[in-house]
Amino acid sequence: MELIESVQNTRIKNIAKLHTRKDRKKAQQFLVEGYHLVEEAVKSGLEVETILSVNPDDISEEMVEASKEQYQITFKIAEKLSQTESPQGIYAVCNMPQHELADFKQLVYLDRIQDPGNVGTIIRTADAAGLDGVVISKGTVDIYNDKVLRASQGSVFHLPVIEADFSEVKEDFLGKVFGTSLKDAKNYKDAAVPESFMIVLGNEGQGVDEEILAAADENLYVPIYGQAESLNVGVCAGILMYHFKG
Amino acid sequence: MELIESVQNTRIKNIAKLHTRKDRKKAQQFLVEGYHLVEEAVKSGLEVETILSVNPDDISEEMVEASKEQYQITFKIAEKLSQTESPQGIYAVCNMPQHELADFKQLVYLDRIQDPGNVGTIIRTADAAGLDGVVISKGTVDIYNDKVLRASQGSVFHLPVIEADFSEVKEDFLGKVFGTSLKDAKNYKDAAVPESFMIVLGNEGQGVDEEILAAADENLYVPIYGQAESLNVGVCAGILMYHFKG
Repeated sequence: MELIESVQNTRIKNIAKLHTRKDRKKAQQFLVEGYHLVEEAVKSGLEVETILSVNPDDISEEMVEASKEQYQITFKIAEKLSQTESPQGIYAVCNMPQHELADFKQLVYLDRIQDPGNVGTIIRTADAAGLDGVVISKGTVDIYNDKVLRASQGSVFHLPVIEADFSEVKEDFLGKVFGTSLKDAKNYKDAAVPESFMIVLGNEGQGVDEEILAAADENLYVPIYGQAESLNVGVCAGILMYHFKG
Repeated sequence: MELIESVQNTRIKNIAKLHTRKDRKKAQQFLVEGYHLVEEAVKSGLEVETILSVNPDDISEEMVEASKEQYQITFKIAEKLSQTESPQGIYAVCNMPQHELADFKQLVYLDRIQDPGNVGTIIRTADAAGLDGVVISKGTVDIYNDKVLRASQGSVFHLPVIEADFSEVKEDFLGKVFGTSLKDAKNYKDAAVPESFMIVLGNEGQGVDEEILAAADENLYVPIYGQAESLNVGVCAGILMYHFKG
């Protein structure tokens, strides 16, 4: 296995660029860090271009088979590629999967959700709940952001996640569209449970966009019985997804 | 209003000590940071000893009335007291409330939950769901930890949170005790919804302690329909609490 020693190596410089959303989009690739996530990426059947590791023994046979190339790297390079405080020294460069909205029957739509932990958790929960996919608006945090990947615990690799405008999705989607809002809305437990649904969750501070609420078939709220002002959007998403899974 | 200028001031040194769990316990006090949380603490009716602010105008009349003393501080001191990257410069020292388990009918019990964000979110959700309180085991992260306070969005101030061994609580609690476990458990939707319940949630990696599972009246799981290995414990807590609220 070839050893890369220089942090100035062109390949390394290009991989480090994948830390920014702009360059991920340009390359149509993203960077996965840490043993567990690299393993999940490999298992998921994603196209893995490159695996890099400080310790070549960490690269399993399965990882070698699933990837086009493997390199040993120095700890200095591992630090350059890392976005965590204590790097495990193993990385994978993956090609972004291409998905179509096509036949999806159960979806969540994320309208400008900002916190990477919230987005990762919602993708993980949508995967657990057996939904068909997650659609994100333009203003939602990039799902290939390192923190989203970690919070999703690998579910970004399993579940189709697509970026699309709400109006686009609404046009193609035949199921029931549920907005979420604290005003002019119905208690979620009082809504009929349809076979096909899309639950729209909104920005942490501002909630779901007014135009989306107006276009939704029905708007729902999760009741607040105590003194808390609101629920965390990831928790709210979990309550609704599991409720409508019937 | 008196201005404190020296970071070596004894009062400031004692307040900075409240960053550690040990010293919080000794003083039976904790430190609240940031405008929104200080406001929540004041509104909640907690005993507020001291309010400190870089900008005296940030100290509202309500804050003055609710607290024993107020000080203006320098930005250097604000930085010393802060546990965030961009301090807002306002702090409150509060006395820890004393709660009794007494007549609680609907509870969650947190068994060695480690992540402050998870604990804060669960307290916030328990408050929203109108539960009577949260009980935490010894190994659970301190609820007066700055990150727990922030994730709870002030719900730590509204909802009774008590530290107690499971065996102690179990003895006094007359309702149904639900453990959570992925094996030897029942789908939560198949369990009867009792009026009084305690839901036990476990450590992020290890789940609920075996002895607790053995002592519970019934053990439940939230089904995983997709490829995710598990749910985030905060999301799982939300799904169960809202389900059993009926």
